[in-house]
Amino acid sequence: MTIELQTADTTAVREALAAQTIELPSWAFGNSGTRFKVFAQPGVPRDPYEKVADAAQVHKYTGAAPRVSLHIPWDLVDDFADLRSYAEGLGVQLGAINSNVFQDDDYMLGSLCHPDAKVRRKAVDAHLKCIEVMHETGSQDLKIWLADGLNYPGQDNLRARQDRLAEGLSEIYAALGPHQRIILEYKFFEPSFYSTDIPDWGTSLLHCMALGEQAMVVLDTGHHAPGTNIEFIVAQLLRVGRLGAFDFNSRFYADDDLMVGAADPFQLFRIMNEIVDADALRPDSGVNFMLDQCHNIEPKIPAQIRSVMNVQEATAKALIVDRAALHEAQQASDVLGAHSVIMDAYNTDVRPMLADLRREHGLDPHPVGAYAASGYAERIVAERVGGAQAGWGA
Amino acid sequence: MTIELQTADTTAVREALAAQTIELPSWAFGNSGTRFKVFAQPGVPRDPYEKVADAAQVHKYTGAAPRVSLHIPWDLVDDFADLRSYAEGLGVQLGAINSNVFQDDDYMLGSLCHPDAKVRRKAVDAHLKCIEVMHETGSQDLKIWLADGLNYPGQDNLRARQDRLAEGLSEIYAALGPHQRIILEYKFFEPSFYSTDIPDWGTSLLHCMALGEQAMVVLDTGHHAPGTNIEFIVAQLLRVGRLGAFDFNSRFYADDDLMVGAADPFQLFRIMNEIVDADALRPDSGVNFMLDQCHNIEPKIPAQIRSVMNVQEATAKALIVDRAALHEAQQASDVLGAHSVIMDAYNTDVRPMLADLRREHGLDPHPVGAYAASGYAERIVAERVGGAQAGWGA
Amino acid sequence: MTIELQTADTTAVREALAAQTIELPSWAFGNSGTRFKVFAQPGVPRDPYEKVADAAQVHKYTGAAPRVSLHIPWDLVDDFADLRSYAEGLGVQLGAINSNVFQDDDYMLGSLCHPDAKVRRKAVDAHLKCIEVMHETGSQDLKIWLADGLNYPGQDNLRARQDRLAEGLSEIYAALGPHQRIILEYKFFEPSFYSTDIPDWGTSLLHCMALGEQAMVVLDTGHHAPGTNIEFIVAQLLRVGRLGAFDFNSRFYADDDLMVGAADPFQLFRIMNEIVDADALRPDSGVNFMLDQCHNIEPKIPAQIRSVMNVQEATAKALIVDRAALHEAQQASDVLGAHSVIMDAYNTDVRPMLADLRREHGLDPHPVGAYAASGYAERIVAERVGGAQAGWGA
Amino acid sequence: MTIELQTADTTAVREALAAQTIELPSWAFGNSGTRFKVFAQPGVPRDPYEKVADAAQVHKYTGAAPRVSLHIPWDLVDDFADLRSYAEGLGVQLGAINSNVFQDDDYMLGSLCHPDAKVRRKAVDAHLKCIEVMHETGSQDLKIWLADGLNYPGQDNLRARQDRLAEGLSEIYAALGPHQRIILEYKFFEPSFYSTDIPDWGTSLLHCMALGEQAMVVLDTGHHAPGTNIEFIVAQLLRVGRLGAFDFNSRFYADDDLMVGAADPFQLFRIMNEIVDADALRPDSGVNFMLDQCHNIEPKIPAQIRSVMNVQEATAKALIVDRAALHEAQQASDVLGAHSVIMDAYNTDVRPMLADLRREHGLDPHPVGAYAASGYAERIVAERVGGAQAGWGA
Repeated sequence: MTIELQTADTTAVREALAAQTIELPSWAFGNSGTRFKVFAQPGVPRDPYEKVADAAQVHKYTGAAPRVSLHIPWDLVDDFADLRSYAEGLGVQLGAINSNVFQDDDYMLGSLCHPDAKVRRKAVDAHLKCIEVMHETGSQDLKIWLADGLNYPGQDNLRARQDRLAEGLSEIYAALGPHQRIILEYKFFEPSFYSTDIPDWGTSLLHCMALGEQAMVVLDTGHHAPGTNIEFIVAQLLRVGRLGAFDFNSRFYADDDLMVGAADPFQLFRIMNEIVDADALRPDSGVNFMLDQCHNIEPKIPAQIRSVMNVQEATAKALIVDRAALHEAQQASDVLGAHSVIMDAYNTDVRPMLADLRREHGLDPHPVGAYAASGYAERIVAERVGGAQAGWGA
Repeated sequence: MTIELQTADTTAVREALAAQTIELPSWAFGNSGTRFKVFAQPGVPRDPYEKVADAAQVHKYTGAAPRVSLHIPWDLVDDFADLRSYAEGLGVQLGAINSNVFQDDDYMLGSLCHPDAKVRRKAVDAHLKCIEVMHETGSQDLKIWLADGLNYPGQDNLRARQDRLAEGLSEIYAALGPHQRIILEYKFFEPSFYSTDIPDWGTSLLHCMALGEQAMVVLDTGHHAPGTNIEFIVAQLLRVGRLGAFDFNSRFYADDDLMVGAADPFQLFRIMNEIVDADALRPDSGVNFMLDQCHNIEPKIPAQIRSVMNVQEATAKALIVDRAALHEAQQASDVLGAHSVIMDAYNTDVRPMLADLRREHGLDPHPVGAYAASGYAERIVAERVGGAQAGWGA
Repeated sequence: MTIELQTADTTAVREALAAQTIELPSWAFGNSGTRFKVFAQPGVPRDPYEKVADAAQVHKYTGAAPRVSLHIPWDLVDDFADLRSYAEGLGVQLGAINSNVFQDDDYMLGSLCHPDAKVRRKAVDAHLKCIEVMHETGSQDLKIWLADGLNYPGQDNLRARQDRLAEGLSEIYAALGPHQRIILEYKFFEPSFYSTDIPDWGTSLLHCMALGEQAMVVLDTGHHAPGTNIEFIVAQLLRVGRLGAFDFNSRFYADDDLMVGAADPFQLFRIMNEIVDADALRPDSGVNFMLDQCHNIEPKIPAQIRSVMNVQEATAKALIVDRAALHEAQQASDVLGAHSVIMDAYNTDVRPMLADLRREHGLDPHPVGAYAASGYAERIVAERVGGAQAGWGA
Repeated sequence: MTIELQTADTTAVREALAAQTIELPSWAFGNSGTRFKVFAQPGVPRDPYEKVADAAQVHKYTGAAPRVSLHIPWDLVDDFADLRSYAEGLGVQLGAINSNVFQDDDYMLGSLCHPDAKVRRKAVDAHLKCIEVMHETGSQDLKIWLADGLNYPGQDNLRARQDRLAEGLSEIYAALGPHQRIILEYKFFEPSFYSTDIPDWGTSLLHCMALGEQAMVVLDTGHHAPGTNIEFIVAQLLRVGRLGAFDFNSRFYADDDLMVGAADPFQLFRIMNEIVDADALRPDSGVNFMLDQCHNIEPKIPAQIRSVMNVQEATAKALIVDRAALHEAQQASDVLGAHSVIMDAYNTDVRPMLADLRREHGLDPHPVGAYAASGYAERIVAERVGGAQAGWGA
């Protein structure tokens, strides 16, 4: 059966979509690549201000991306209050602060898990510095992803590293303000190859539970082994009240960091279906929907616009699932019937509804085209001459 | 550097090896196969008594396999006290009781997670029956592996199934005696294809923590996604005191149930290395080392003997790791040096030491050969004529 | 941009869809399951005639499934001419003949690759028997899938098995009639776990090339390692003129045999996109589009109907790709633009167009509903009482 | 049974080991890392001469690494004849020439497969330049690994890219001298994420067969999907006479480029077992055994020494397999017996035999220790001051 969106009362769906926000990563606008090559793109930002300006373009055309995550030290500025008011002037907020304890030479063999106490001290201090930044930016979330891990069996003691990790996190947690959170990311491989110190949601959750209620798990959709059912993890973390945020992106094999929804749009829909089912889409649910992806060969601003639209489309499909019919079929053990309810929503073309919604809110119905027509891309290429382009190293 | 076992004082190593015990599964002695075909083997047991007799052969030649796990209802007998004394007469104990709630027609769409309360009731009752059996057999561990899961997105509600699971487990847990445990297994796929209701150690652990201190996680070495670092999970579960048991076997891709150590002997060594490192090899550590594997094309008794020997060899290698040198290299951030310490132990041929140890304990140094020479295999082929051979269905 | 199917001239698309045919497997209508359990379903066929009758229902409601593959010996009948005319009376043809050399006890360690020449002889003869059947049924394709492989390193000689395989295939090939083909399937694991003797398309292709022009590769969508780009293989096999057939199904991790399009509908679309791009959809392209999937927990006839519809929908989306725009964007190195052209087609809801097409051809626009309303399901449950239900073993 | 190397006649084994050579990659001595960070190491070479000097150290202590592969343009020098005589003065030869058509900005979307004919021209010319270098260095092998591929479905036409690839290779092949070869590498992912243009051995082989007898396949042990049986591919390529070379390294999940034998030593043994079984170890077999691995966190020279030793140990184990007993057990369908023959060889400690062999040839029995004691590492740290360290980009 097709779902007739034209004639249905989609008021609640539209309201939910209008309230949805997606946070953008500042580093998505800088150069990025693989270990083989970083291909520079003309017009790429040279400082955090220009990154924020580019992110604001995404919000301008989608109306759904009002926050920008920063990465410290990549986005260090002298005056974060100034950066904050600059952002607000462009209609966006500064969002989560991402710590970076993997690029200083001292961190070659780890940061919070390093066998050397001096390196651990330095890594804790780097996080305390991030919390200071958060006070200035008004950020609520300290996102911690560690590159810690081992390349070779025996290289270090797996369990001792967990103990060191717990100790370091504990000191960082103690420094949080009352409305601040640690959101702790897991990743099952890379840049370490034999083991990573937070490889799975179970490990992240154990540390969060040990820390307290202000510690939550970050689920990056690219950080799982093949065959992993990600929406199950979403449901599980929501059930125990510990899903703090998403890092959205998509991947075919490794942590490919492609545009969310590009590799497996059906999976993205299933993830959003769990979110809707648990009523976790509402703005006060405690789940921060963030993008974390890189654009190595495609232009960065339109790629972010497209990604936001992909999340919106998956969300819209999740919102139009006929939950009463679904529940009824599930209770009746009607395997094909229940599956069909899900597929009917997925197979529906929600783009016209989203285009309408944009028009209602004064936006162009076609964000990518509107951005392309704006001349912004050409302008930054012309203007951003000289200086050092931002990338993962700056 | 080679480790000179001939001249070293290996007293502690030998004592640890002599104290190690491995539990055998009764079902390893029956017929098994794939969905394509079960190839019957001559001489296969026709009842639980004959399975126990075969298991006792493995213990007779290895001296290291003094317990047999049972599977209910496959191993139901009229008088478990009689089976118990029969086993003890052969020198072995009855071990863990495995519930089976996946072969009755009612369980097609699940057991403890089924949408229908009547099916859930039946599944809980099946477990309560297992606990009754445990009182008669003297078993301490109720091993729960559920085939519950979904084949299609939407087929049932992922989160509701977790809630039902928690409720069912809670009722079963309440029926445990003071010295009994639930050991809860996870499996990331099969026989369900889209999702399994306990897919990973995190899910199993969450349920165990909710139940109480008598609930522990079972780690089956074949139940992980490709690329998963299993020894990390071992270390993590030991760290939180919740590693209840192993189901040992080996696999190349799926849950292949090959002989442990046959597919990746280095991985088995790394797992035992974490066990030794955490001092969890000692008999009172609470970790039950069990085999759970099937022999589809190879003869069953020698395959179990070989598997026990493989675990012993991996353990022996783990025991001879020079932990002082390892710790020193790790603290010094000497990546290659630390890795070398591990590899030196792994590359050592421990078979002569194990052969000596067997001689010391009055065993033939070559268990497979001794079993082959005993004529037992020919005897059971001759004697076990008529009746229905045991298999996964009985 | 949304593709406006209502107003576009979709004549060519409709003609291509109307000409598309999908072959059904007789075994999809019998009972099937996993190694853990086969759950029987009421009304399941008890002989090949009833299987053909059920398959004819799928064609009746979709108009797109006019052939039925048989499996020998599962579908052996005394008089194939009679079965053929029975099928034709129901509006369907007998299609490919599938050999089965994996269920006789002699085949435990292989068939065409077995170390024992007597077993190889028997396996060749089984195929010659299939060719005889083909003469009676009018079938063109002898589909060969072998369960041959190894569970343990060293079990047999990998290379010698290839030589034996080549020799056996060669004898079978020589017996083909001038309009008959061998279509040779590959599978990367299961039921063997360590190695399979035709694990990948490269191996199948090498054997086909050695045999001659009447040997072609079968691509089963469930028979690849995780992360494999299947549409690349489709394109490659089409390029060298050796794609003989598809075995369609879908899977999340292993050879799950779920309904095609259920696990990753975007992948199915990408596969059909390569087919359309190479003009291989036309009936005389030499590609036989077959289903090969099992319905363990869902009702079998509607699951086949749904599967046929899924293939039709993926095909329709592939047909509406704006290939001129795609080519232009690709030539211009417009990564996002080219990707968008593909996604615009994929995101279009083609179900209304397919419903229209069915109406045009005198079919109910909603095949699943029409079948459900027909009472056929209830009738076979009532009528098929007694006898032995068909399954993988019969 | 243990294999008693002390008393056995191992003359043939020792001769085979003494004749074995392994080629080293120049880039293993430069800095390398991940997309997250390249950690520089003190003493790293600053030019090709210093790389060759470091490689010569590996040969000095192992006696088994007499060739060095170069990477063009990373290793471009003004006078290759001079570099060649420099190398020969240090006791090593210049080996395979590796083309690099992935770091110039023009290659962002591909090289030989690029949609733009101008870029393809440039990529062909880069290879022709490599052939010129080969004439000067006396190299026989032009190793081609392409980073070509796609990140997004639709980005380019999969099949057209194959046609362009065939055309480009054909022109390069035509420029080969009579004793030169193209060796063509495949890789299933990275740096492209959606598809790579030579993802598997089948694709590489098809192109080699189209080119002619001087084109051979390169098997990089890190370039396969999880679960792939690599020794099967080795056996298959040897069977068709197209295994040109190995790129040895090891990996847990992706193309980790760890030291060969570090992640799965049993797999390395199985690979060498196929080599020995096909008599492809002998120097004139046409198989070039090369290392291709990076040392991101461990010191580079000892890591290469260790890697060479790992290959030697795996080879030694393969050489002591009792092939008569293996064949007999295989023919008798003795699954466990045949597997045991393989495992007996694998479980044997061959390090004492290799130490003896080194002594016989005037080498220190412990290469890593001897290198460490030599003071070379300290010397290059002291001497190599100033200049730009070599890395993947230079």
